[in-house]
Amino acid sequence: MDQPDLATQMAELGARATAAAAVLAQTSGAQRAAAVSAMAAALRAAAPAILTANDADMARAADLSSALRDRLKLTPERLEGVAKGLDEIAALPDPLGTVLEEWQQPNGLQFQKVRVPLGVIGIIYESRPNVTADAGALCVKSGNAVILRGGSDSFASSGAILTALRAGLKQAGLPEDAVQAVPTPDRAAVGVLLTMTETLDVVIPRGGKSLIARVAAESRVPVLKHLDGNCHTYIHAAADLEKARKLVLNAKLRRTGVCGATESLLFDAETVPTLAAPVLKDLLDAGCEVRGDAALQALDARILPATEEDWGTEYLEAIVSAKVVHGVGEAVAHINRYGSHHTEAIVTEDAAAAETFLNGIDSAIVLHNASTQFADGGEFGFGAEIGISTGKLHVRGPVGAQHLTSIKYLVRGNGTVRAG
Amino acid sequence: MDQPDLATQMAELGARATAAAAVLAQTSGAQRAAAVSAMAAALRAAAPAILTANDADMARAADLSSALRDRLKLTPERLEGVAKGLDEIAALPDPLGTVLEEWQQPNGLQFQKVRVPLGVIGIIYESRPNVTADAGALCVKSGNAVILRGGSDSFASSGAILTALRAGLKQAGLPEDAVQAVPTPDRAAVGVLLTMTETLDVVIPRGGKSLIARVAAESRVPVLKHLDGNCHTYIHAAADLEKARKLVLNAKLRRTGVCGATESLLFDAETVPTLAAPVLKDLLDAGCEVRGDAALQALDARILPATEEDWGTEYLEAIVSAKVVHGVGEAVAHINRYGSHHTEAIVTEDAAAAETFLNGIDSAIVLHNASTQFADGGEFGFGAEIGISTGKLHVRGPVGAQHLTSIKYLVRGNGTVRAG
Repeated sequence: MDQPDLATQMAELGARATAAAAVLAQTSGAQRAAAVSAMAAALRAAAPAILTANDADMARAADLSSALRDRLKLTPERLEGVAKGLDEIAALPDPLGTVLEEWQQPNGLQFQKVRVPLGVIGIIYESRPNVTADAGALCVKSGNAVILRGGSDSFASSGAILTALRAGLKQAGLPEDAVQAVPTPDRAAVGVLLTMTETLDVVIPRGGKSLIARVAAESRVPVLKHLDGNCHTYIHAAADLEKARKLVLNAKLRRTGVCGATESLLFDAETVPTLAAPVLKDLLDAGCEVRGDAALQALDARILPATEEDWGTEYLEAIVSAKVVHGVGEAVAHINRYGSHHTEAIVTEDAAAAETFLNGIDSAIVLHNASTQFADGGEFGFGAEIGISTGKLHVRGPVGAQHLTSIKYLVRGNGTVRAG
Repeated sequence: MDQPDLATQMAELGARATAAAAVLAQTSGAQRAAAVSAMAAALRAAAPAILTANDADMARAADLSSALRDRLKLTPERLEGVAKGLDEIAALPDPLGTVLEEWQQPNGLQFQKVRVPLGVIGIIYESRPNVTADAGALCVKSGNAVILRGGSDSFASSGAILTALRAGLKQAGLPEDAVQAVPTPDRAAVGVLLTMTETLDVVIPRGGKSLIARVAAESRVPVLKHLDGNCHTYIHAAADLEKARKLVLNAKLRRTGVCGATESLLFDAETVPTLAAPVLKDLLDAGCEVRGDAALQALDARILPATEEDWGTEYLEAIVSAKVVHGVGEAVAHINRYGSHHTEAIVTEDAAAAETFLNGIDSAIVLHNASTQFADGGEFGFGAEIGISTGKLHVRGPVGAQHLTSIKYLVRGNGTVRAG
């Protein structure tokens, strides 16, 4: 047990992050963009070292599932993709310094509301080495210092990437300690991180349900939640059949493992034979498992029975639940009750029904005649994202560099005192 | 012990709030404004009942300090002031429904970012009956349901006010359960409230340090912090003497009990005789206690020695700490270290020094040649406020109706699917 040592190490890490954040807060957008470009260049230069470290991680990870091993694996091509991502982050508009609002009060006081960095951000993620680079670059771009804690399986790969990022920062003349990682793969480090309320302005968990549940339950630091995406597509009675077929196939099967994948379909009762039948046949023929209510099961022997639990489940696989509803009101009520407030779509040619759905659904993203797989910061034009926030505080929906900011008010007077 | 009963009561309260929030989210700005007007009218109509309830609270509060009794006391004039406050909230622009941003992506998708309510808000405050009305009205105006928990000393007064607010809501055709209060003055109710993560979108503590510390330590629901205001005024070497005298007297003594009151003064070393001496003499002559460092103590026998603890103390009384610094850099470093990131001012005629201060200070509000007592939503033009947020997430600075909101993205396509 080196618990006391860990606490001391974490406190020192925090103090260095705070000092780096104070320097970053005073940098120009050009300086931060140049630093992210230098981080990309350093990543390319360090490719051999990073790939060697990744080989070591992969050797230790022989027992992991092939999906987890794939997530962990770096290749020269994947690493170049990560570096390109950093180039794109460098090229984003500066999220800071903007005057968001400006006004004058009758007493002559001039008010400005300006964007400032959050300060120090903690990011806790699984064994995806690319997140080390993405998250580090997004934080530097937005003027924040970051403390990273990646999954233990990627400890060597992430460490090698971190070394490159810090070399890039140093070369650009910014403090290396703008990007740090916890010093040990030990899970105890996460526990300490979640209590560092004096250091961390926010902690962002990025990963599966159990990780996020642990962070939400334990953290004393404010959390930006990225919960599951139990996304719905509702095929309204006035849907165009061809659009519905195309949209459902894309929303469910384009990629089944992303948080914007549709997990549940709703069909209006009156159009079960004309809309539900062909849409579900497409899915079944494409190898997707369908779990339906009684009315839909009657359509095809391949449709399995859905249970109450299915309505609340994010499968992240080629499985979909399907249910009959009676109109847009019932669809909205079902989604607001069972959904995860992430992303939902309606397919319809009826503009009034679409507006009722868009207004009634309480989710971060609500689409009309478009695939739920558009739930992605890049598709929104935000550049790289940390994830999709399903919380309603601070930021909802895709979280990009522009959302890792706060504001302050600058007030200018001329010896102005308050009366009364 | 009726702990199980309390848990059940709180769960029912939560379910009613959730249902009311769903209705409120679909109301127009005109409906919500009319409801707040009706709440004001109902408050006026219920004045006799409210004053009788307040008499009962006052009789039970005989042992409280005169300051606490004054906070608790309602008079016909004070109650009319509260009703007028509600009229002003009714007249504010609708914080909801605004399209904040609108853009199109190359694939034809149309994006809109629109304001929506947060949902259900918990507000925990001390024995100030007026907060019951202000907070209830601000939440209804912004489309949120609220669960109130006021101090136990004001339980009868707050209950009578709540009855009036709910009568107003009913008259306006909105759900009465948009405004509810916990059913008991028992502190255990706060404990339950802070665990209601499925019901509450945010909890806002409004009150003293110990209340806020308890909420921050215990809450599983996201908290909008309103910490103490250890506010600074820095008299730079290039300050105009008359402005400095006027500003310091106002910033410290206009009202000593408000969170925007200046608690600490910084003076540049080179101008101690010309600026610090007259400014501190004004304060001493006005009856303010001054606790200074060695250099300032030498100016006047009435100046007491300051300790390290003084630099971090919010007095909320006619006491001020005072310290010599060497230039704007040292002033900024001292404030960022010892301050509470609330409100700070610089007094100077040197525009470059002012900009260095405005950029360097990490506080919600930073002023140049103006009194820190302007830290108030009304003075910003926001209308009534719930408080001043010193956190950096979601809202920083004065919290008005417009800040009790979230956003969602509406995305419109034409059968648009995601490639790749």
